[in-house]
Amino acid sequence: MYSFKNDYSEGAHPRILNALIESNMIQEEGYGNDTHSQNAISKIKELVGNENIDVHFISGGTQTNLIAIGAFLRPYEACICANTGHIAVHETGAIEYTGHKVITVDSKDGKVTLEKIQEVLDFHVDEHLVKPKLVYISNPTELGTIYTKEEVKTLSKFCKSKELILYADGARLGSALCVKDGNLTLADMCNFTDAFYIGGTKNGALLGEALIIKNENLRQEFRYHIKQKGGLFAKGRLLGIQFEELFEDNLFFELATHANEMANLLTKGLEDVGYKFLINSPTNQIFPILENKQIERLEKKFNFYIWEKVDDTRSAIRLVTSWATKKEAVLEFIDELKK
Amino acid sequence: MYSFKNDYSEGAHPRILNALIESNMIQEEGYGNDTHSQNAISKIKELVGNENIDVHFISGGTQTNLIAIGAFLRPYEACICANTGHIAVHETGAIEYTGHKVITVDSKDGKVTLEKIQEVLDFHVDEHLVKPKLVYISNPTELGTIYTKEEVKTLSKFCKSKELILYADGARLGSALCVKDGNLTLADMCNFTDAFYIGGTKNGALLGEALIIKNENLRQEFRYHIKQKGGLFAKGRLLGIQFEELFEDNLFFELATHANEMANLLTKGLEDVGYKFLINSPTNQIFPILENKQIERLEKKFNFYIWEKVDDTRSAIRLVTSWATKKEAVLEFIDELKK
Amino acid sequence: MYSFKNDYSEGAHPRILNALIESNMIQEEGYGNDTHSQNAISKIKELVGNENIDVHFISGGTQTNLIAIGAFLRPYEACICANTGHIAVHETGAIEYTGHKVITVDSKDGKVTLEKIQEVLDFHVDEHLVKPKLVYISNPTELGTIYTKEEVKTLSKFCKSKELILYADGARLGSALCVKDGNLTLADMCNFTDAFYIGGTKNGALLGEALIIKNENLRQEFRYHIKQKGGLFAKGRLLGIQFEELFEDNLFFELATHANEMANLLTKGLEDVGYKFLINSPTNQIFPILENKQIERLEKKFNFYIWEKVDDTRSAIRLVTSWATKKEAVLEFIDELKK
Amino acid sequence: MYSFKNDYSEGAHPRILNALIESNMIQEEGYGNDTHSQNAISKIKELVGNENIDVHFISGGTQTNLIAIGAFLRPYEACICANTGHIAVHETGAIEYTGHKVITVDSKDGKVTLEKIQEVLDFHVDEHLVKPKLVYISNPTELGTIYTKEEVKTLSKFCKSKELILYADGARLGSALCVKDGNLTLADMCNFTDAFYIGGTKNGALLGEALIIKNENLRQEFRYHIKQKGGLFAKGRLLGIQFEELFEDNLFFELATHANEMANLLTKGLEDVGYKFLINSPTNQIFPILENKQIERLEKKFNFYIWEKVDDTRSAIRLVTSWATKKEAVLEFIDELKK
Repeated sequence: MYSFKNDYSEGAHPRILNALIESNMIQEEGYGNDTHSQNAISKIKELVGNENIDVHFISGGTQTNLIAIGAFLRPYEACICANTGHIAVHETGAIEYTGHKVITVDSKDGKVTLEKIQEVLDFHVDEHLVKPKLVYISNPTELGTIYTKEEVKTLSKFCKSKELILYADGARLGSALCVKDGNLTLADMCNFTDAFYIGGTKNGALLGEALIIKNENLRQEFRYHIKQKGGLFAKGRLLGIQFEELFEDNLFFELATHANEMANLLTKGLEDVGYKFLINSPTNQIFPILENKQIERLEKKFNFYIWEKVDDTRSAIRLVTSWATKKEAVLEFIDELKK
Repeated sequence: MYSFKNDYSEGAHPRILNALIESNMIQEEGYGNDTHSQNAISKIKELVGNENIDVHFISGGTQTNLIAIGAFLRPYEACICANTGHIAVHETGAIEYTGHKVITVDSKDGKVTLEKIQEVLDFHVDEHLVKPKLVYISNPTELGTIYTKEEVKTLSKFCKSKELILYADGARLGSALCVKDGNLTLADMCNFTDAFYIGGTKNGALLGEALIIKNENLRQEFRYHIKQKGGLFAKGRLLGIQFEELFEDNLFFELATHANEMANLLTKGLEDVGYKFLINSPTNQIFPILENKQIERLEKKFNFYIWEKVDDTRSAIRLVTSWATKKEAVLEFIDELKK
Repeated sequence: MYSFKNDYSEGAHPRILNALIESNMIQEEGYGNDTHSQNAISKIKELVGNENIDVHFISGGTQTNLIAIGAFLRPYEACICANTGHIAVHETGAIEYTGHKVITVDSKDGKVTLEKIQEVLDFHVDEHLVKPKLVYISNPTELGTIYTKEEVKTLSKFCKSKELILYADGARLGSALCVKDGNLTLADMCNFTDAFYIGGTKNGALLGEALIIKNENLRQEFRYHIKQKGGLFAKGRLLGIQFEELFEDNLFFELATHANEMANLLTKGLEDVGYKFLINSPTNQIFPILENKQIERLEKKFNFYIWEKVDDTRSAIRLVTSWATKKEAVLEFIDELKK
Repeated sequence: MYSFKNDYSEGAHPRILNALIESNMIQEEGYGNDTHSQNAISKIKELVGNENIDVHFISGGTQTNLIAIGAFLRPYEACICANTGHIAVHETGAIEYTGHKVITVDSKDGKVTLEKIQEVLDFHVDEHLVKPKLVYISNPTELGTIYTKEEVKTLSKFCKSKELILYADGARLGSALCVKDGNLTLADMCNFTDAFYIGGTKNGALLGEALIIKNENLRQEFRYHIKQKGGLFAKGRLLGIQFEELFEDNLFFELATHANEMANLLTKGLEDVGYKFLINSPTNQIFPILENKQIERLEKKFNFYIWEKVDDTRSAIRLVTSWATKKEAVLEFIDELKK
């Protein structure tokens, strides 16, 4: 049974496994001081066009978010994010465990607006309330929508004017950067945020996210934070090698582009049959609304999540594609739809 | 330059890489619910001879320790460990970050004794002091020494009588289990502790430790703890596949035996030339005492840590072997010594 | 200028000061082991009609909430409360600092409903989300409304059936118990909750809240929690003496009744002139809606908070009465209104 | 039975109670914004001869230490203190609960030396270990000994050169400042530390410590920290009034001088009879070594702690005097000794 449940159902892109094999028996320093990690950092600095950044490789999204946010904030400071934000919902209170409140703002499309942030600032005025200090966005959002270059820039300007840290969760950043007719670049993400991460796990790696910290005030002694939270790998090479390969010959972008194309193909197929969507998503997660009977029938051949009930006879499902998604599987799904 | 600095200088044992490749494109469930992780759990249950345990795969030692200890203790409870204990010294206060004091007892050989534990209990008598609740041991210790079966059993009985949790850090457990003429088994570790972990990172895996929790009171909803601390991998298969392979055909024990044999060979070579040791270690870390000039000479050909100054002309160094250590490198080191 | 800003503008009821003076030079044990604290505990046990409870005296509301909730929950467990809940809004993230998420539910009147709690339970189904475990109510709420006996009983039954802890913040509990025609008693609060606290600070004491824990599972070694959070006073007598006096000759209830009567008098005065209220409150906080010009005029003679903007010309203000509120001041306020 | 167990057996100095009564019915702002707190702050600024400091009144020692240290340190930073330090031993892991390791150094007299601090710095060199950042001293120490002006100055210079924060716990600071022939002043404490606190609880107040923060980097938004840890009192006046009175007409110093004189009288009485001491203490805690039989006899008439066993027939006891200690009780104790 083919799965569209998520973008981590397979292992790694074969080139990454190959890179692991080729480097395997060469002795390297531990804890990210290996040549591959250093090389991957150089490549990333080049890509974002900024030498004056810190890059750290961390195992996964929750781990990256809790280390970064826990390090960036003083004890009484809080994050602002959309009510669908991953840190607000799907990280088992990891941010609260570091001691910080996550303030959510209502959002239909997974994005935060300046108005909503301003409302939070207006409400939190003295020491009896937490102090909002960091705006968390995910790009793409948990609903597959994206912030365009212009939107990130606007957020950036606003946050600077309010002395707020802008932090972007890029678990699926590749997909946001590679949408059809998109104009956002890695360099933009670096220019317009204080820190962000580039997701590897969901774009071809076995595991690994590359955290980029541009704001100098946030960089200080950051490796202590990683180590203290259990995030510093003895064989840091495992992370370095994968990012080294992902940023060789454009692989990272090719993989994300493929994932998007497969999702776009699914979207087109669904539209052709006349289906609507919960929300328009140009990235690798889409949310078509189907009749419950249709869903039951599809579930016999495909794996996917039922996202939410829409009305008595229809529900939205989530379909996720990835670097590994086979075009035949997509076409088969569309064929099945038409039956 | 050949390195005896640690047991994580190379990648993974080739069989493990091979297992990753073979399983790579098969879709699996995420978050440790894949077939490989389930299979690895079954193998471990069989090996320890106990079906009624929980097994969780976690990325590394610090991560495992902080998740386990943070989950096992109530806020005012504390750990007891040797003053050389990894959690006390080399984890950047990870345990304290979870809110718990680490009470250290003096130790020459890295081991804790009943007498020292009793002293701690005698001192901590009311609510103005923390309540000691967990005894942390590492086997082998950070000094390469081991607890024998009889010693672990004695500790176990004592801890039970005092209502203390006995937890063992097994970052290099393979090495402890495979010492020459040893009698400790994985089943013993499970019988005599409330929880312990089997280290993969330092015995052939790319990363990964297998945490075994036997005490039922400590198992409750444990996956919440793992997720909250950022330890639940989307591609949990990465950990499962490695342990599945390590416990296939005795690989885990063969690798540890090789590491020990290489260390024993080094020890014998050093003894033959007349060198003494800081401490007698039967495992894969040894601590010979050399003249500083000799050390300087060796450093031109080999990598290793200078452990501590012994007197004005001599220091102890640390030599670490692993599954990947080449016999030729060991012999070359001994030859070099003799020059 | 007379203040209706809050119920902690004056010192203590004179009888309490007198009790401090009379006992002052008698040597007592420290840390709450004094005769007064023990005596106050006996009185409270008698009042609630249950010997099998633990009573602890703690300095203030935030301190009590953070100690209690921090002690009751395991790391991944969360509280549910109204979006106006004190812990959610006005405690500077104190609960989050203990590591726990505060999940808020929408509420117009400051109260939580079974439906809203059930929605939270339905959403939080696995280890990727926090586990809701404690329902926090304040009685009276932050909006002056109350839970009746029947309502607390219903909540209690529901929480038991869902294995949720029911915890009540009673910063102004006296006021809730002493509303006109009310039927809720201290004994009810004890019967229907797992733990709750009786506020002293806002009902005649200099400081102090009495935390009552009925649920045996939550009582274990609780003094360790108090001490660890800095809540165990060397001169615990200071708290004991005050509660001893408050529960002598009904003083506690007389003071709360006076506060309510003064608020009711204000309410009647405002209604007579034709004013509406943001919400109907039978307790010592009321929220009349006034024209902004009227507010400006009143502010020249009285202190109070402007609570929220209602429309372009009107706002709700908050008036708070207490044991110390003078009837003349209330009448003067009403007179001023009528001008 | 007269008690020499501690310096918090009685209530408050009568002048303090009187000040509470006189101010009782005057309405004041909450949360430390009352006129008394502001007035007390002015007096303290004058006394230390520095307008450019922050002063906060907090309930007790553990609460003050955990708020201050928790605010001053970043997550991976640690404190250094003597192995007898109050934060290391008698605060139920309050500092660890804020996430920070307390590194203890051996000490015979309760004091830390530059050599011992340097050893800690030499050992903690990279991100695998915590980063020592704050030196905690108590003056007087938990053993009654004191740091002289010269010693505090030397520590201060050393800490500055190493970028360490120097923080002094002054639970009994009055006693240290008022020792016979002493030369240390409040102004010195302010000059030579980054932050310190002046204990009220053990020198005549019902409760209360005055935290002084001189270092500008540590002052930022400090009230948020106090509130978040439950330390901001609604009736902050309770703390302000007491310190206002303590620093009126030298009361604070007179009380401490009396406590010292009573302890000195006890010391002289014990010396006259020929007793030795565990340690020489010029302050209000003394540690005479008595025969166990003598101790048993004294226990029938006096309350005190047995501090530690010295040999098979003798133990050291702790005698504590205070502002409230009666000279007759001291003389009676000495008489009893001579029997």
